[in-house]
Amino acid sequence: MTSPEHAGTVLDVSGRPVELRAIDWRPLFFPQVVAIVGATDTEGSPQRAQWRQARERLLARGARAVHPVHPSKPAIDEVPAYRGVLDVPDDVDLAIVLVRDPLPVLEDCVKKGVRFAIVFAAGFAELGTDAGDEAQRRLAEIARGPMRIIGPNTNLNLIEPWRKGLPGRKLAVVTQSGNQGRPIVQGQELGIGIHAWATLGNEADLEFADFAAEFATTPGVGAIAAYVEGFVDGRTMRLAADTALRAGVPIVCIKVGRTSAGQAMAKAHTGHLTGPDAVQDAVFRQSGVIRVDDIDEAIEISGAFCHTPPLAGPRVALCVMSGGTGSHVADLCGMAGLPLPRLAESTLDRLRTLLPAYLHVENPVDTGGVATARPEGRKVLEALLDDPNTDVLLTPITGVFPGMSDAITRDLIALHERGGKPIVVAWTSPIRDRDHRALCDAGIPVFHSFRTAVRGIRVMADFWARHRAYRSPFADVPRTASPAAATARGLLVPGATTDEVTAKRLLRAYGVPVTEETVATSAEETVEAAARLGYPVVVKALAADLAHKSDLGLVHVGIADADAARDAYARIADAARLAGLRLSGVVVQPQVTDAVAELILGVSHQPPYGPTITFGLGGVFTEVLRDVSFRVPPFDRDETLRMIGETRAATLLGGVRGRPAGDLDAVVDAVMSLQALALELGDAVRELDINPLLVRPRGLGAVAVDALIVAA
Amino acid sequence: MTSPEHAGTVLDVSGRPVELRAIDWRPLFFPQVVAIVGATDTEGSPQRAQWRQARERLLARGARAVHPVHPSKPAIDEVPAYRGVLDVPDDVDLAIVLVRDPLPVLEDCVKKGVRFAIVFAAGFAELGTDAGDEAQRRLAEIARGPMRIIGPNTNLNLIEPWRKGLPGRKLAVVTQSGNQGRPIVQGQELGIGIHAWATLGNEADLEFADFAAEFATTPGVGAIAAYVEGFVDGRTMRLAADTALRAGVPIVCIKVGRTSAGQAMAKAHTGHLTGPDAVQDAVFRQSGVIRVDDIDEAIEISGAFCHTPPLAGPRVALCVMSGGTGSHVADLCGMAGLPLPRLAESTLDRLRTLLPAYLHVENPVDTGGVATARPEGRKVLEALLDDPNTDVLLTPITGVFPGMSDAITRDLIALHERGGKPIVVAWTSPIRDRDHRALCDAGIPVFHSFRTAVRGIRVMADFWARHRAYRSPFADVPRTASPAAATARGLLVPGATTDEVTAKRLLRAYGVPVTEETVATSAEETVEAAARLGYPVVVKALAADLAHKSDLGLVHVGIADADAARDAYARIADAARLAGLRLSGVVVQPQVTDAVAELILGVSHQPPYGPTITFGLGGVFTEVLRDVSFRVPPFDRDETLRMIGETRAATLLGGVRGRPAGDLDAVVDAVMSLQALALELGDAVRELDINPLLVRPRGLGAVAVDALIVAA
Repeated sequence: MTSPEHAGTVLDVSGRPVELRAIDWRPLFFPQVVAIVGATDTEGSPQRAQWRQARERLLARGARAVHPVHPSKPAIDEVPAYRGVLDVPDDVDLAIVLVRDPLPVLEDCVKKGVRFAIVFAAGFAELGTDAGDEAQRRLAEIARGPMRIIGPNTNLNLIEPWRKGLPGRKLAVVTQSGNQGRPIVQGQELGIGIHAWATLGNEADLEFADFAAEFATTPGVGAIAAYVEGFVDGRTMRLAADTALRAGVPIVCIKVGRTSAGQAMAKAHTGHLTGPDAVQDAVFRQSGVIRVDDIDEAIEISGAFCHTPPLAGPRVALCVMSGGTGSHVADLCGMAGLPLPRLAESTLDRLRTLLPAYLHVENPVDTGGVATARPEGRKVLEALLDDPNTDVLLTPITGVFPGMSDAITRDLIALHERGGKPIVVAWTSPIRDRDHRALCDAGIPVFHSFRTAVRGIRVMADFWARHRAYRSPFADVPRTASPAAATARGLLVPGATTDEVTAKRLLRAYGVPVTEETVATSAEETVEAAARLGYPVVVKALAADLAHKSDLGLVHVGIADADAARDAYARIADAARLAGLRLSGVVVQPQVTDAVAELILGVSHQPPYGPTITFGLGGVFTEVLRDVSFRVPPFDRDETLRMIGETRAATLLGGVRGRPAGDLDAVVDAVMSLQALALELGDAVRELDINPLLVRPRGLGAVAVDALIVAA
Repeated sequence: MTSPEHAGTVLDVSGRPVELRAIDWRPLFFPQVVAIVGATDTEGSPQRAQWRQARERLLARGARAVHPVHPSKPAIDEVPAYRGVLDVPDDVDLAIVLVRDPLPVLEDCVKKGVRFAIVFAAGFAELGTDAGDEAQRRLAEIARGPMRIIGPNTNLNLIEPWRKGLPGRKLAVVTQSGNQGRPIVQGQELGIGIHAWATLGNEADLEFADFAAEFATTPGVGAIAAYVEGFVDGRTMRLAADTALRAGVPIVCIKVGRTSAGQAMAKAHTGHLTGPDAVQDAVFRQSGVIRVDDIDEAIEISGAFCHTPPLAGPRVALCVMSGGTGSHVADLCGMAGLPLPRLAESTLDRLRTLLPAYLHVENPVDTGGVATARPEGRKVLEALLDDPNTDVLLTPITGVFPGMSDAITRDLIALHERGGKPIVVAWTSPIRDRDHRALCDAGIPVFHSFRTAVRGIRVMADFWARHRAYRSPFADVPRTASPAAATARGLLVPGATTDEVTAKRLLRAYGVPVTEETVATSAEETVEAAARLGYPVVVKALAADLAHKSDLGLVHVGIADADAARDAYARIADAARLAGLRLSGVVVQPQVTDAVAELILGVSHQPPYGPTITFGLGGVFTEVLRDVSFRVPPFDRDETLRMIGETRAATLLGGVRGRPAGDLDAVVDAVMSLQALALELGDAVRELDINPLLVRPRGLGAVAVDALIVAA
């Protein structure tokens, strides 16, 4: 599950790291001495262009020497060449390996003490063949040593030069595809400066998490834009996201694998298995990663983070040149949950002196275009920025009308340069003229649509709120097993499905509340147990490897007296015989009669994340509604509340149509206990279902009335 | 509900038109003689620029004379002026009214026999004041005459000149806001030719429907792009959409009012009350109107319709330059339900000769960029277009790389000019260079994102499939009342809530199946009725103005014997006394024991559409899940199936987890009967709920077990 490279770091109780490995990146980003293995000046060879371009760029980045390595040529382009890496006289910071079979070269590099190697060759895991997998395994073995490897199946975007002099913080780009990253770095056209672009290739060693965490903690980086088909390690990905969220540097990520169509191609591409998407979505949410579905969003949203100060909140001041635009954008803000607050009285007074009486001076403020080209235009915008009730100014510029757009552009740039609250522009015309460029070059985030601008503001406000409130769940994650672990392991038989009593015993060990219960092996024992527990009771079959009991007629509820209890026992025994089931007895338990909600709680294994908690509406509608949400441990109580809030169960727990509200605290407690179990037993539990967890009214708790565990 | 102007056309049983009024538009679009009232050459007056620009444009459109009308000046800009419209010597086709108080001018225009008037002045319904409403009422009265009026509160976009020589069919634009339409007509930048742009203003007379229907039937128009805040008349809107769908000209519409935020501003803007959004969404779906949420989508999707031949189906051939792009776009296609079919063997053979072995020749085809700049590039694209399994070629161009993008641009233009299947480009770089322009000017639809391109293909395939299968529901709508109508009207007491028995009698009259039932007024009658109907039975309170019976303990189910029946009667009588309810008796009905699904069916009034059918999951979860869908009558059985398909009820009706499938035909029958009722009784019924309609297994029908009608 976890890359061996992380073995040196601190591990939690599940054996997963709680911190990322430390890497000294200087020899990669600013290498003094570089060896380019496979360099050539033979005409027509693609390696000639690569060598020439790489050398030029490396020297421009401050490299002292860029040595070609070639098996026979004494010099390449008149630069003295060496037969092998071991022959290079200097200490080598970085080896760029262009040859088809890089393994022997890399072995030499390790001997030489090379710090980083970039491996171009394809022919590894992405092939999906045994030979490819074997080659990748050998590469991974080399990667256990002190040399860090980028690739294989990558390129040299890492040493590409970028436009200087662009405003604001810089964007770092991390992609698993060169073609997908290119339009993102072309975001320079929108005034977005690029810090660096890492193309990952197959990630035999250095992975997404390493680069993301490094960029997130590099001064001057404002955001990380990423294109990812699959993460090699779910925990390191989460640790990188944790680092970024703490640092206040968002990761804006396109993650393929929303459907099986994308997954099939993704496997062909870089050899990853993409995980079930709902879990991926949940992990991004819990980790503060901003998921986007397309390149335009990735560029514009990550660029906006580079160009704006942290948003204090989500309250939008909207300034439009027509009521139509006001209606439309207000509608989109409403859909995104962005408030358009009422402006302060002093602001309204100020606006009334600036705008004619027939215009809408409340938020959204409609200048009708009449103020735009006059000195009042800037004053209106200024009043909105100064208003104490607003956090961000959104200014849509719809059609291009030079008379108006020149003026508003000039005003926005002046106000942006004044500093203070962020200004966001939505430029919806397909015409991109000098004003568009001026806004971009001034460092104002310019979105191409209202929708993207509104989404940009939404995610910025959310990210900064999250950043301010964030406490890493990795700080508290247990590193050693609890006393319950030994008990639990004693109860699990590898490969077997526990019976209900064992499953509940295990849950009880971790503090999940379960129903009181008695096992009976005869009708009379059933009646005795029922009398002791108090009617009404539930009587259920008890047997190992038994799932979906209700469907088989093995559950009898609402047993109100001794006759009914006796009858239930008899009927269960009959049904079991009919089903060819070996009964261990029946379980008698008191019936919960005041349940407000019936929930399902579960643990399943979700690569690359490991044990994952499922929460949802239980009972007969579970399969019709599929109303479930997920989180990967560790996570805290607030995150648990967010998980609950993503389902309709939340409505039910809140109390609907005269029903009392449910005991939410007890549900959160149960989830917290279950995640402790999941982390500790993790790989020993293949599946765990609590179905249902019955939630009683506030203050009365929640209780698991049935459970099932499949041991790994 | 319906504008008086439609009184002359054929009406259905609800009094709504089944066809749009006929208008002779020539005098508006190509006027021979125009009077411009309020024209001036006074420096600094905004009317001076309007008069000058309008005159120039009208003459360019072929007008013989453009007369200024001014109360005192003998000439304006040396053109002889008249004191009033009545003084103009010629017959006037079009009057453009720039004066602040247009009502007297319009009265003169009517006397003069003017055919069309465009009214600039604001100060009508959009004010939301009594004076404004009164002015609009007077205007509407004038509009009952033979002169058609555009506005008030509009402008002259209708006579704007557009770029010539752009390829493909033309786009007609209809908007309720000039500012919102401007970026759409700037779609010319993307090669989209504009046919005309109507800005509607307050629609005191000519409304969205009139223009949309006219443009949809104008030869050479390929699509209608619209920005709408509210429709003045739901039925005429539907008739216009019906005309457009039959004509194969899609309406691509931004409709504000998704949230209350947008609605508030929309009211301020043009005086419309926007309807509840879920109903609006449903109406668009049933009418084949393509709803988009933003301007970029409106431009690119409507433009794509102008530039492509009808799609034969949704099967996408995807040609990418990298596996990453293939994964990403395949994923988005998967989310949109667009198939990437397996290519024909002959195509695969052809591709294998064109591409190196390591690339993915299955769909999506990955050229790895290597083929792009070579002659093979065009051959790959050609093979995909020729493949018998594909309907459209999608070619993403991600980053701009002149070497590659020049070649692919040249190839795509050549193949587009060859004709045949449509080609769609997704250009995701923020850089828009000469290749971008060349693609646009060649008439290839160029989307700015994968997502929008995929959505474009999805809606084009859906629209053309819908167009081919479409049969207008207005052809069959009843024009005279059925025998049930008289019975029904006899049962409804204005303002009162019917009791269950009356409600079911009314439903039965329209053919909605209801439970057999007997009213009992004593415990003994209850027992007799139950015995006759057969146990188990349900016993419920019967009273007028009684809703939410279950919550009050007035419903007893599962009554299995005489004792229980007697007991139920007594308990209901007690509960009624406690609730201060005047009981008419109890209803005894057989209990449906084999229900597969519990549904809710209803009728409610939804402006501007009138009586609207609600369908959804019934029972206790109705309020938690709000899993409902809507349709406005008339609609056919296929549309009913689509309405059902939009809810989770469809899953339940299909049979889940061992439950039998429900009788879908019976559900459709019930909906068809209910819409006949809704159309006929329409305004006499304020609300109608059937809750629940119990659906039995296939072949066994469905039955309304409880119902409630609130008469208007």
